[in-house]
Amino acid sequence: MSFEQLDDLNKTLASLDHAMSILGADEATNMPEGGGDERAEALSTLAGMRHEQASAAHIADWIADAEAEDLTADQKLGLAEFTRLYNNLTCLPPAFVRRQSAAKMRCEQLWRTLRPKGDWDTFAKSLENVVSLVREEAQMRSAASGLEPYDALMEQFDPGNRAAEITPVFERLKSELKDLLPQVTEAQNKRLAENPPKKLQGPFSVANQRALGLAVMSPVGFDFNHGRLDTSHHPFCGGVPTDVRMTTRYREDEFLQSLLAVLHETGHALYEQGLPRENAHWPQNHARGMGIHESQSLFVEMQISRSPEFWTWVRPLINQHIGENALAGWSDADILNLVNKVEPGFIRVDADEVTYPLHVILRYEIEQALIAGDMEVRHIPEVWNDKMQDYLGLSTHNNMPDGPMQDVHWSAGLFGYFPSYTLGAMMAAQQWAAMEKQIPDAKQQIAKGEFAAINTWRKDNIWSQGSRWTTPELMTRATGEPLNPDYFIAHIKRRYL
Amino acid sequence: MSFEQLDDLNKTLASLDHAMSILGADEATNMPEGGGDERAEALSTLAGMRHEQASAAHIADWIADAEAEDLTADQKLGLAEFTRLYNNLTCLPPAFVRRQSAAKMRCEQLWRTLRPKGDWDTFAKSLENVVSLVREEAQMRSAASGLEPYDALMEQFDPGNRAAEITPVFERLKSELKDLLPQVTEAQNKRLAENPPKKLQGPFSVANQRALGLAVMSPVGFDFNHGRLDTSHHPFCGGVPTDVRMTTRYREDEFLQSLLAVLHETGHALYEQGLPRENAHWPQNHARGMGIHESQSLFVEMQISRSPEFWTWVRPLINQHIGENALAGWSDADILNLVNKVEPGFIRVDADEVTYPLHVILRYEIEQALIAGDMEVRHIPEVWNDKMQDYLGLSTHNNMPDGPMQDVHWSAGLFGYFPSYTLGAMMAAQQWAAMEKQIPDAKQQIAKGEFAAINTWRKDNIWSQGSRWTTPELMTRATGEPLNPDYFIAHIKRRYL
Repeated sequence: MSFEQLDDLNKTLASLDHAMSILGADEATNMPEGGGDERAEALSTLAGMRHEQASAAHIADWIADAEAEDLTADQKLGLAEFTRLYNNLTCLPPAFVRRQSAAKMRCEQLWRTLRPKGDWDTFAKSLENVVSLVREEAQMRSAASGLEPYDALMEQFDPGNRAAEITPVFERLKSELKDLLPQVTEAQNKRLAENPPKKLQGPFSVANQRALGLAVMSPVGFDFNHGRLDTSHHPFCGGVPTDVRMTTRYREDEFLQSLLAVLHETGHALYEQGLPRENAHWPQNHARGMGIHESQSLFVEMQISRSPEFWTWVRPLINQHIGENALAGWSDADILNLVNKVEPGFIRVDADEVTYPLHVILRYEIEQALIAGDMEVRHIPEVWNDKMQDYLGLSTHNNMPDGPMQDVHWSAGLFGYFPSYTLGAMMAAQQWAAMEKQIPDAKQQIAKGEFAAINTWRKDNIWSQGSRWTTPELMTRATGEPLNPDYFIAHIKRRYL
Repeated sequence: MSFEQLDDLNKTLASLDHAMSILGADEATNMPEGGGDERAEALSTLAGMRHEQASAAHIADWIADAEAEDLTADQKLGLAEFTRLYNNLTCLPPAFVRRQSAAKMRCEQLWRTLRPKGDWDTFAKSLENVVSLVREEAQMRSAASGLEPYDALMEQFDPGNRAAEITPVFERLKSELKDLLPQVTEAQNKRLAENPPKKLQGPFSVANQRALGLAVMSPVGFDFNHGRLDTSHHPFCGGVPTDVRMTTRYREDEFLQSLLAVLHETGHALYEQGLPRENAHWPQNHARGMGIHESQSLFVEMQISRSPEFWTWVRPLINQHIGENALAGWSDADILNLVNKVEPGFIRVDADEVTYPLHVILRYEIEQALIAGDMEVRHIPEVWNDKMQDYLGLSTHNNMPDGPMQDVHWSAGLFGYFPSYTLGAMMAAQQWAAMEKQIPDAKQQIAKGEFAAINTWRKDNIWSQGSRWTTPELMTRATGEPLNPDYFIAHIKRRYL
C-alpha cells in the first residue's frame, strides 16, 4: 500500500528531524566551540539527506495512489497535510533552491559583519539579490498553489493566513495602538508617580534563578519526564515533543528577565509536549505553524505571567528560591509596573506588548510592498524612518543598526514570517477570552498556582489538534469565531489604561 | 574519479557517525527518561541509513576503480582500511545479520532480567542460540578473510591480532600472575601492617569532585575547546574527536573512584583528540581499535595515575578542590595502598591491575573453545568455576550472577573482544617503557604536573598514526618490538612486590 510507504517515509523523516533538533539544541547548550565546524558539516549532511528523502519524485506517485486507498478520516487529514508540505518542498527547482540558499547565506554573513558598522549600502546590494530571488520564489509558489504571491510565502509559516484578511485586522490594530499609546504613557506616568519605580538589588546567583525557573515550570505544566531546562546565549525551545529542550539565560543583576524567558519558552514547550503522541511521525500531529506557536508562548508569557494573579502565586516561590530580600518592600503594583513597562523603542525584540505590534506592522507593510515590486530595497531606510516616526514617534534617520538592519529575517529570505508574531499575540488574547468563558475563575486559579483546568482547555482546543486545520480554522474551532482584534485591544486597555 | 566518490561517501558516513555519537552521549547524560523510545527509534533509523550507505553493492566497483587510480601513499592506506571495513560489513548476508541481531537483542534483554535471579538455565538456552550464530558468523568471516574463525572475530576489534601470537603471551602472563599473586598479597600485608589502611571521611560534594576532575584533566592534556566532562551512570568516553564527550560518576562518601574514572576516560579522550584532523572522515585517521584504545586509557590510569609521582602532583589539587581535610594525616604510602589495593574477587570490572588479566584469560580460553566447538554453553559454569579456583582461588559454584552471568558481552555476541582489555594493559606498560627510554625523567615531570613531553611522544607514536597500521605493526613501530609481556610483568613486580 502506498500509504504504508508514506508511513515508513514519515518515520524516517521524523528520525532525521529528531537528530537535527537534538544536535541543534546540544550545539547551543553543550558543544565546545571547537566542535562547531564538524557539527555544521554533520547537520548539513543530515539536512541534505532529509531534503532528498522528502522531495523524491516517486513520492508524487505514492500520494496519488494513497489518495485512492481506503483511508480513515485521520489518515486523509495526514495525507493532505503531507501533500501540502511535499508541494511546498518541490514547487521550486533544485537549481533555484541552491542559488537562493547561497544568496541568503552570503547576505546573512554580511548582515553579521555590516550591522555593527551600520554599512547599509554594502548590505543593500546583497539584500537586493535576496529580494529579487524571493520575488521569483513567490511567483513560483503562487503558480503552484494558486495563492497570491505574498500569501504563498506566508503559507509556509501559517497555512491559511491571507493578506486580504490580515491587512484590515492590522489596520485596525495600528490605528487603535497609535491612539492608545499616549493614553497608556499617561496612565503609566500616573502609576509611577504613585509608586516610584524600584530597582532590583542583585547579585542573584544563577543557581537560585535556575531553581526558581524549575519551581515555576512544573506547576505551569512542563513535563520534566519529556524535557529539560538548559542555558544558552538566546533562549529557545527546541528538541522533540517527547524530549523538549528549553533554555533561558541569566544575568546576575536581576532575575525577572530570565524568569519571563522561562515562561515564554514554557509556553512553546507545553504546545510541543501536548501534541498528539499517536502517529507523531505524521505531519497532522505536528505543531500548526509559527503564529499558533507564538500564541502558545504569549498565552503563558503575556496572558498568564504578566497578570497580577500570577505574581500573587509566584512571590512566595521567589522568596523561597531567590531569597526573602529579593523583593523586600515591593508591592505587587511595583512588580507589575516593572514587568509591564511600556516604552517606545527602536528594537523589536526589546519591545513591550503595546508597541511590539507596531514594529511588526511596519515590517509587514514594507515586505508586502517589496514582494509586490511596489518598492525597492533602496527605499527601505526612508520608508522605515517615516513609519517609525508615524507609529512610535522615533527617528531612525542615519541609524541603520537600530533601524532596518536590526533583524536577520530578510537577509535569511524570511518574508511573510513577521506577521506571525503579532497574530500570535492577538490569538493568545482571543484564546484567553474563550477559555475564560469556560473557566470563569481562571484568574483565581492562577493566583493559587493551579493550571490544570486552563491547560486542559488548551490541550483540547489547540495542542491536540496538531496540524489538522489551517490556522484560521483552528482559531475558529477553538474560540468560536475568526481572528478578532477586539480581544487583544481590550486586553491592552484593561492592563495598561 | 571513484576515489572522490568514496571521499564523499566517507563524509556522509562521518556525519552520520557524528550524529549517532552525540545523540548517544546526550542520551546517557541529558535525555529525560520519557525521551527514550523516540531516541531509540531515531538512532536505529540513522544506524540503518549508515549501514545501507556503507554496504551498498556499487561501492565494490568504486573500490576496484579507485585502486587503479593515481593515489598518494596516504590515500592508498585509506583505501585499504576502507576496503577492510567494507568487507567486514558485507561478508555476512543481510538476512543473517537481521537474524543474529534479533537473537543478540533477545539474549541481552534476558541477561538483564535473569542475572539478578541467577537463572542460568533459562539464560543458557538463549546464549546457545547466540553462540551457534556466532560460530556461523566466524565461519563466514573466516571464509571471506582467510583467517582462522576466532581470529576473524578478533579482527573486527583489533586488526592484526592473532590467537597464535596472543595465546603464548597470555600463557606466560597467566603463569607469572598466578605465581606472583601470593607474593603480592604477602608484600601488601607487610605494607599494611606498617601503614594500617585508612578510610576517607566524607561527604565530598559532587561540585568539589567535579572541580577536581576538571583541574586534573587540563594539565593531563584534555582540550576543553574540543570536549567536555559530564555525569552518567557509567563513565564513558564518546562523541567525536573535535567534540569528545567524557563522563564520570560521583559518590559522596569518597572521591578517588571518580577521579580515577576521570583519568581513565581522559586517556581515551586524549587518543581521540590527538587523531589526525586532516581527512578525519577517512578511516585511516580513526582510532585503531579496542586494544590500542584501552592501552591509551590504561596508560593514563595505570602507568601515570597510580604512580607515586602522580600523587605528589595531585595532592595540592585535592587540598584545593576537595578541602585541606580530605587527606589530612594521610602519607603518600597510605594513598598508594588504597588506590593500588590488590584483592582477588569475582567481578572482572571491579578487579585490580594484578588480577584483572586472569579474569580476561579465563574468558579468552572459554570463548575460543566455544567458537571452535570444543565446548558447549552448558559446560561454562563448571569450566568457569574450575578456572576461578585455579587462577584466583575462588569458587563460583552455584553463584551464576558473580560467575558466568556477570558480563553482557557474550549475550551481545561480542566474542574476540575480551582479550583487548589485557592486551591494552600490556601495551600500555610496553609503551611506557619505550617512552621512558626517550624521556628518562618522565616520572619527575609527572611529579611536577608536566605532561607535554609525554603526550608529544604518545601523539607522535600512537595518536597521529590513526588506523594506518595493524595493531601489532603499530606497537612495533611505536616501541621498537612486538608485544612483549615482560614489560607488564616487570611493571607489576615493581609496583606490588
